[in-house]
Amino acid sequence: MADASLPAVPSEAAPLGGATLTPAAGGATAPQGFTSAALHCGIKAKAGALDLTVLAADRAASAAGIFTTNLAKAAPVLVSRRHLEQTGGIARAIVVNSGCANACTGTQGMADAERMVSEAAAALGCDVEQVLVASTGVIGVNLKMDKVVPGIRMATAALARGKGSEMAQALMTTDPFPKEQAVTVDTGSGRFIVGGTAKGSGMIEPHMATMIGVLTTDAEVSPALLRRALHESARDTFNAITVDGECSTNDTLLAIASGASGVAIDEKNYPALLEGMLAVSRALAIDIVRGGEGATKLIAVTVSGARTVSDARQVARTIANSPLVKTAVHGADPNWGRIVAAAGRAGVPFDVDTATVHVGGILLFENGLPHDHAAPQAAEHMKGTDVSIDVNLGTGGNVEATIWTCDLSAEYVRINGEYRT
Amino acid sequence: MADASLPAVPSEAAPLGGATLTPAAGGATAPQGFTSAALHCGIKAKAGALDLTVLAADRAASAAGIFTTNLAKAAPVLVSRRHLEQTGGIARAIVVNSGCANACTGTQGMADAERMVSEAAAALGCDVEQVLVASTGVIGVNLKMDKVVPGIRMATAALARGKGSEMAQALMTTDPFPKEQAVTVDTGSGRFIVGGTAKGSGMIEPHMATMIGVLTTDAEVSPALLRRALHESARDTFNAITVDGECSTNDTLLAIASGASGVAIDEKNYPALLEGMLAVSRALAIDIVRGGEGATKLIAVTVSGARTVSDARQVARTIANSPLVKTAVHGADPNWGRIVAAAGRAGVPFDVDTATVHVGGILLFENGLPHDHAAPQAAEHMKGTDVSIDVNLGTGGNVEATIWTCDLSAEYVRINGEYRT
Repeated sequence: MADASLPAVPSEAAPLGGATLTPAAGGATAPQGFTSAALHCGIKAKAGALDLTVLAADRAASAAGIFTTNLAKAAPVLVSRRHLEQTGGIARAIVVNSGCANACTGTQGMADAERMVSEAAAALGCDVEQVLVASTGVIGVNLKMDKVVPGIRMATAALARGKGSEMAQALMTTDPFPKEQAVTVDTGSGRFIVGGTAKGSGMIEPHMATMIGVLTTDAEVSPALLRRALHESARDTFNAITVDGECSTNDTLLAIASGASGVAIDEKNYPALLEGMLAVSRALAIDIVRGGEGATKLIAVTVSGARTVSDARQVARTIANSPLVKTAVHGADPNWGRIVAAAGRAGVPFDVDTATVHVGGILLFENGLPHDHAAPQAAEHMKGTDVSIDVNLGTGGNVEATIWTCDLSAEYVRINGEYRT
Repeated sequence: MADASLPAVPSEAAPLGGATLTPAAGGATAPQGFTSAALHCGIKAKAGALDLTVLAADRAASAAGIFTTNLAKAAPVLVSRRHLEQTGGIARAIVVNSGCANACTGTQGMADAERMVSEAAAALGCDVEQVLVASTGVIGVNLKMDKVVPGIRMATAALARGKGSEMAQALMTTDPFPKEQAVTVDTGSGRFIVGGTAKGSGMIEPHMATMIGVLTTDAEVSPALLRRALHESARDTFNAITVDGECSTNDTLLAIASGASGVAIDEKNYPALLEGMLAVSRALAIDIVRGGEGATKLIAVTVSGARTVSDARQVARTIANSPLVKTAVHGADPNWGRIVAAAGRAGVPFDVDTATVHVGGILLFENGLPHDHAAPQAAEHMKGTDVSIDVNLGTGGNVEATIWTCDLSAEYVRINGEYRT
């Protein structure tokens, strides 16, 4: 996060719509009103590797979720989505396991997901519908329920404050590092905290099924307003990243609000909640890309001068998913031709002759012609770990959007091409 | 082409709508009424490497073209497209150079492309508008016109019959092998020939700009009917392949019909012309994939059980462009989970529980569950050079489509990631 051009959690207090954001420690359990536990129950083969975690709110909390759009939805996705519909957005706990995605597992998989939430609900003394569940790991394999059930019983008995880091570790599959963030939000009506944890990073290993994110806050917020904040904050963060253009069977993003800070969120201070969730989400999302499979560089693709934000996003996404652009960045090659060609096939009308391309702030393409003399300087920028690509479409519009991606390396091929059976 | 499951030019005469197709030698100059020449004019650095070719019809011929949909269109694309509009589909010659794409070259690039066609027209004594031009090679670099102009003069002076192979070689950039095909079509109204040549294979090297195809026939066919046959034959051949999902600045497919066979094409024997063009196009298109950057395997992705052909194509294309599927094939990993996940995110509605996945004809996924016992047998199939992936969407529809692609190897990353400047 050394590159100032990349948005992240502000390192110093910054004023935002009357609110002030300050980084905080503690990850998903930084906000008041939550406990958690994480343990090794035996899903992962490696002894001691954390593979099960429970996050519990002290009392019934507002909750919201965003789930994969893939038609092949894992059992835990179907269960969590249904529970949020049934409760209208109320939850007491979130159970997450890693090492097994419980996807493409048929009726047995559904029964296993149902069992996970019912075990947690029984232990916590709440309705089954108030427990949400997420799984990540191998697709097409059933959960070892003889390990998972005792694991849930032990975890719910061990719930404690200040265990956010263990939760972040228990989400990992082959993620190179755990991901957690928290931010304190000071508003005119008081102070609350937004925390979160996530895991990535592509469908990493053969059959690995991907992203899970959990956001927490001790703000007091209605389910409807929390849902709105989750969708608005995900749009330019979790939904603005791509490792390999793949959308998995298990992608799940949950938010849960304990209300324990006593700070009530209404329309007036909603921007403060949104800013807090944006800051945590952006940092977690960027960390997912940084930990992407085989990734050696973070690439921020910003498209400006567009007529609409969806135009800007579409062009940025096409560039960010271009294997030729991603391999060029991997090789620190300021290959503006590939960037122009990717933009040109994105399906958004613009005039190539009025577009410009900057890499690392250095102008490489303008008036339909290259600035090849600047290439060595751009190549220097690309040798770093944070690369920026800026394309101005020159349509006369002034809308912009950023998509974060990583480079495509031979290591990606090695990770995903190794013979599995 | 050893795998019988992959369509190609039939190795034995096969009856098609009353016509019989037989493979023929001679590539693009196999049909009567054409001459060609190819030479090294000096665009490529390597001494003797063919980099310029002219194909001429003995007299004004019907012609048609399909061009890149990329907004960043190279100068030769703009010139050829305009000429076909101006003449209503009449051409005498096609000039093609390799080693320089004449793309992103501004007004100088347009002047250079205009000069190429005017030099050829002067030498052949025809209207400038009757000459088409295509370029392939490095983007953002101007043509060495002091080499190209004398080259065109020498080539037009050296036109001869039976030089199709040299033409195929002159199209190559870093293609691993030249691509040419021809087929004799016997119909009730007589015999004609369809020939062709093409080059690939992705935007291979830094800044290389891609596909060029030239189809020839000595059938007598109106420009309108030739245009229709070109579009219909390209749809399931040149437009049904993908190496890396990239669409270049220069993609050009041209067809030219000399009429020298005396066989007139009307609505009745149009299917015979279409079959001939399909056979040549399919074989050339598959050869482009086989020669794709870093490719070690040809993958035929067939999606059946769809409601519409566009649904089938969309799902097949999503699977064919999935980096996770392509790396799995590279590693001979029968990873049905990635195939299901890619199909599920293609944007086409279907029920995963009624879909099936076969690899090499071996059932791997059915009723929402894996057939893991069959994986070793599928892995054996995947160790070969020709891999088939068949997905039945189980929608009740009976439409299918095939997209051809290649595996994604570390060599692809090496080719495209090497530092250029």
